[in-house]
Parts: sequence; structure tokens; C-alpha cells
Amino acid sequence: MNEFELIKKYFSKLSSNNKNSLRLNDDVFFDKKQKLVISVDTYVEGVHFLDFRSPDLVIKKIIRSSISDLICKGVSPKYYFISGSGNRKSFTKKNLVMISKSLKQEQKKYSIYLSGGDTTFSKKLSFTITSVGFSDKIIYRNRAKIDDDIYVTGNLGDSFIGLKVLQKKINLNRNLARYFINKYFHPNIHTNITKKLFLIANTSIDISDGIIADLEKLINNQKLSYVLYLNNIPISEKLNKLIELKITKKIKSITRGDDYQILFTASPSKSRIISKIGKSLGIKISKIGKICHHSQKSQIINEKNEKIALKNKGYFHKF
Amino acid sequence: MNEFELIKKYFSKLSSNNKNSLRLNDDVFFDKKQKLVISVDTYVEGVHFLDFRSPDLVIKKIIRSSISDLICKGVSPKYYFISGSGNRKSFTKKNLVMISKSLKQEQKKYSIYLSGGDTTFSKKLSFTITSVGFSDKIIYRNRAKIDDDIYVTGNLGDSFIGLKVLQKKINLNRNLARYFINKYFHPNIHTNITKKLFLIANTSIDISDGIIADLEKLINNQKLSYVLYLNNIPISEKLNKLIELKITKKIKSITRGDDYQILFTASPSKSRIISKIGKSLGIKISKIGKICHHSQKSQIINEKNEKIALKNKGYFHKF
Repeated sequence: MNEFELIKKYFSKLSSNNKNSLRLNDDVFFDKKQKLVISVDTYVEGVHFLDFRSPDLVIKKIIRSSISDLICKGVSPKYYFISGSGNRKSFTKKNLVMISKSLKQEQKKYSIYLSGGDTTFSKKLSFTITSVGFSDKIIYRNRAKIDDDIYVTGNLGDSFIGLKVLQKKINLNRNLARYFINKYFHPNIHTNITKKLFLIANTSIDISDGIIADLEKLINNQKLSYVLYLNNIPISEKLNKLIELKITKKIKSITRGDDYQILFTASPSKSRIISKIGKSLGIKISKIGKICHHSQKSQIINEKNEKIALKNKGYFHKF
Repeated sequence: MNEFELIKKYFSKLSSNNKNSLRLNDDVFFDKKQKLVISVDTYVEGVHFLDFRSPDLVIKKIIRSSISDLICKGVSPKYYFISGSGNRKSFTKKNLVMISKSLKQEQKKYSIYLSGGDTTFSKKLSFTITSVGFSDKIIYRNRAKIDDDIYVTGNLGDSFIGLKVLQKKINLNRNLARYFINKYFHPNIHTNITKKLFLIANTSIDISDGIIADLEKLINNQKLSYVLYLNNIPISEKLNKLIELKITKKIKSITRGDDYQILFTASPSKSRIISKIGKSLGIKISKIGKICHHSQKSQIINEKNEKIALKNKGYFHKF
């Protein structure tokens, strides 16, 4: 049973008195009356981050992953809570200094501040981040319309290569390795597009689990399908080079997640304003596909105009 | 370094832009402008609960422990988030059904509802509960006044005996064992006194770590001391019986926490209204000590009017 089925079966009814909870089918909780938006996520060593050898980098990554949930919904995060469970080795003075310094940098960069949390003892290291923002509206999931264009910000796949380098599954020269590892630890969150999303997007999500997994999550309660054009999915020149050298494949690199780019759908009539917003903010926004009637099966089209089959759609939270 | 020192040293400055965060020196976060009160707590198997053999009971205990943080501050919880990390064994269908049923019962009992959360894979089982309420005021920590009386609701110590029975460190007959185990898993949270606290209490906290540990936490930023009268600290008849039978000691049983009773201080002029409120709500409220000038050392006085020394002040979160 995957995460969605599990939540649906056992927990959805528990939020049934509460229209604002989106019946647990969104990455954020929204209380419209109180204008409150909350995201809660847990990050476990060995699952969501490899290890804690670079506490400064891990902390930045999980903070960005958490606030990304709000930002992709049109909400600016205001504060956050951090609960850390770990052992003495994880929370040495040296590590605490590094963690504290990283948090300070992230606070400055994203105008957020620490509001609480706790520290508990555990053999296994994990963090739960709660991010809080205020807004009288959010961009919901499951609001795509037939014929909507599908867009994504930034480039995909660099983060996945960074992970593979860290896992020593891909060997690159020092500079390249550093580039991709940096992309893995420091996803580029587009805070300045947040409020503009209300002008253009019908529905949105951030890419944490991979573009296919998150696209399917985005419309999981709608009777819709999609077509994605692999050619149009944006990647960096450096990743393109690795693909040319057959070090990795495009479809693999872009479907493994950790990108924290914004995936949204918009009416075709918004095409011009979207390209204008992208230019004025200096954010790459790529049109990568279309939302279709469910009578047509979802498909991914490659550069030769062939349908491609996916072995691995990305990261689905399974139990 | 204990939890307070750790937080103070490395994290207090991170909340310095934010007057409402209480500089991380409270159990809740309070945003006065948004009228928002949040508590975040992590519960780890083997630390905060023994094991997961009774998922239904463990879930009730941690939900109550979390909302207790708000209730003791005068705030009614409105919704909660639950993040669970565990393995397949912890989240079998059978356990999920039990967890879901327990949550449903707690929701009904306390008028709260589930608003989100997530599930992640981890070898070690832990839960992070985020409780949210709305209020334009809270009762702060560190607002005791010299000569304030110290009060506590309900009885202390039953929960500790329940834990010892579960750990097989105390053997009792079946009925008695069931009584104490029930007190351990089902702390009696006094929701109906919440709003009345504003009429009487200068400062308040819930007893999670033990009456001494929490009293010291309650006034940890004030230059004050206290005197507690052991005789006046309320315990159940059943616990009193165990003490008479020398199965446990009073000072030990009441200082180990998990009671989730409300500890507060109030001006001596409030004595009459406090007893009136207690009677009208059917809540036992006991006057157990006094707040003193810091020139006098904090002390605990036994039934023979002797000062007693404490070997163990309760549970301090250490790293």
C-alpha cells in the first residue's frame, strides 16, 4: 500500500469535519478562516538524506524542502519549527554550531525565523520541520483543467546526479562533482514567483518525488491524464553533457526528485503572461506538456515522437 | 549540557527577530498578531513511550501530552498534525486500524481534528505531534510573583506507577495494575479549566517531566525560589496505599512526570475563587507551596517539617 492509499484508507475520515484540511490530500494544511497555512514533514537519515557528515548542508536542504511546500502554493513562509531526534554523535557542539549557522543563513535568505521545536534522544537521526505561513488563498492540488499546459520552473535532474555522486555511483571530476552536489544540497527555491502564481496557475505542486510522481499526485483526484514531451523538460547544460557521454539517461535523471522546482498547469491563454513573468523575474519557466481527457492514456513522448515506458516513476512513499 | 542550555546557547538568537516566539523559552509558540498558538513535540519509542505493543494506548497518550501543552496555557487546541516514522511492523493494517480508532476517540473527546502529517520509513519508531490553537492571549512561563501560592490540579504519581508496572519493576494485582496502567496511558487532561486559568494564574505549565523539574522550568528565567510542602501534594488513595505498603516513596512517585496536570501560581488573594472554580468544575486543585524571594533557597518540606534532599529532580532532557 503506498502513502496515498494508506492515508486515504485510515486517516481521511478523521479530517472530515474540517473542509480546510483538504481531506489530507495536499502537501499543506490551509485554514481559510484563520488564513493559516502549515506544512509538516519528517526527514530521516538514510531515507531523505544520506548521512549527517555535513550537518550544515543537510539542514539547509531540509529547510528548503519544507518551505518549498508553501512557496509552490503561493504562500510565503513566515516561521518554522524544528524537531530533531538523534544521538550525542549527531548533536556535538561542533555540529550544533554548524546547524545554528546554517539556520541563520537560511533565515536571512528566506525571511523566516525559528519559532520552536524540540530535541529528543534517538539512535536514528531524523528531523521534523513544521513551516507556517499566512495567506487568504492558496493554489490547490487537483484543479487542473483539460487542455491546460503543464509548466515547470528551473532545471530538473541536477540534484539526482549530486546524490549519485555522493553515493559514489557516478564518478565526476572535482568541479563537476561539486556543482551537482551543491544542487543536491542547495535546491534553488523561487520565492519571488510565489505571489505571481495566483495570476497564472490553476494547480501546483513542488517536485520532491520526481516529475512523474508529482504530476500524478497533482491530479490524483481528477479524471484527467497528461502528455509530457521529454524534449521540452529543462535540464542544465552540465546534465546534458553527462547524457551525451552516456553517464546517465535523461528520463532517469528527471524522475527521481529532490528538485524542488514548481510544477503547475495553466490555461493556454496564459502563455504570454507566463513568459513575461519568467523574464521579469529571471526564472526559467518551461512548457513541458498538456493535461488531457482521461479517455487518452497518460504518456511521455521522446525526441523521436515515440511513447516511452517508465520503469520507475519516481519516489512513492511506501510502507 | 541539558536541553535548556543547549537551546539557549545555539538557537535562542535565531528567534530574536520574533518577540512572539518567547525566545524559545516556553512549551508553546504564540503569535499574538495572528492569535496563533503552536506546540511541537517528538515522542520516541524507548524514550517517551516504552514500546508499540498497544498502539491504541500509545497514540492516546502522545496526543494528550501534546494538547496538554496548549490547555495548561489557557488555549483550546483546534487541530493537530501527526508525523510518524517507523517500519512495516509498526504500521501494519491492524495497527493502523487501532491508531485511526484511537485518534477518532480523542478527536471526539477533545474537539480536535487531524489536519495533516506524514509517514516515513525508519527503523526507530517516533511521532511528532503539532497541536494548533487560536487565542489572543496565553498564560506565559516566568511570570510568577513573590508570595504567589503554587497550585496543582488532580493527583500526581499514578502515571509513574503505571510505567513501573509496565516495566515489571513493580508487581501489583490485576485490578490495581490496570488502574495505574490506565493512568499512564490516559492522563486526565482538564479541558474545562483552560479558559478559567486567565482569571487566576500568573504563570502555568503542564507536568510532563515531574513536579520539581517543571516547577523549576516554570520560573527558570526569574530570580525566585520556591517552597513545596510534600504533605500537600495530592495523590490518589491507591498510590497512598502503595506508599503505606512501602512499595514506593511519595517523593519518588511525584517527581517522575507524565502526570499532565496543570501547575500554576496565583496571588494569595485568589485563594477563594480558585476553590470555587475547582468545586464548580469538579476538579481537585491543591495548594502545594509558595513562591519565595531568591535569597531563600528552594526547598521541599516533608511531613515532619524537615527539608528533604532530592536525588532525582525528574526528567531533564539531556544530550
